[in-house]
Amino acid sequence: MIELNFDKLNGLLPAIAQDYETNEILMQAFMNKEAWRLTLETGFAHYYSRSRDTLWKKGETSGNLQLVKEIRVDCDNDSVVLKIIQKGGIACHTGNRSCFYKVVKNGELVEESLK
Amino acid sequence: MIELNFDKLNGLLPAIAQDYETNEILMQAFMNKEAWRLTLETGFAHYYSRSRDTLWKKGETSGNLQLVKEIRVDCDNDSVVLKIIQKGGIACHTGNRSCFYKVVKNGELVEESLK
Repeated sequence: MIELNFDKLNGLLPAIAQDYETNEILMQAFMNKEAWRLTLETGFAHYYSRSRDTLWKKGETSGNLQLVKEIRVDCDNDSVVLKIIQKGGIACHTGNRSCFYKVVKNGELVEESLK
Repeated sequence: MIELNFDKLNGLLPAIAQDYETNEILMQAFMNKEAWRLTLETGFAHYYSRSRDTLWKKGETSGNLQLVKEIRVDCDNDSVVLKIIQKGGIACHTGNRSCFYKVVKNGELVEESLK
């Protein structure tokens, strides 16, 4: 298996889900080694939930699976980009397409309607 | 100042630099509260270097500054996307345009020439 550096963040590293076609950033989560292995093996994005302290197959309950089309790794092997097709079109648990639906405008956070 | 959640990662949160025009992901680094404040105030990307344990204005020595055109914040206020114009066209200390120049192919990491 491709070895990444999970040491800098106590066994985790950031993973960024990016729309395969539009390059829109849909979410950022974390992977542990097991999530990385399962993502490689299954072709679907797996993460590690810090709040629930458990491995997590994205979309397992909602159906909003992330089909991985390409995986990119950074210079230090401590960050990954998953280029994905987002099943159901929704990545965020709030119901928004992307988790990054808030924009800084005039020193405030403004929610954009991305649904 | 816009309050983000720096508590989940011992005072840090992931920041993703994305090309303002092409949506290409150029790098992922970390911010502490001071880096966030300086990014908002100056309009140039600041990060926190974990390896050097210090605040870091991106491009301060190389000249490859990152001019921030838009800032997006995620649902949980614990991850940010900086949509930037990359001065000098190079974000990575390796000399590549993007830090994510390695791609998984047939179970191996293959370096793409992105320079």
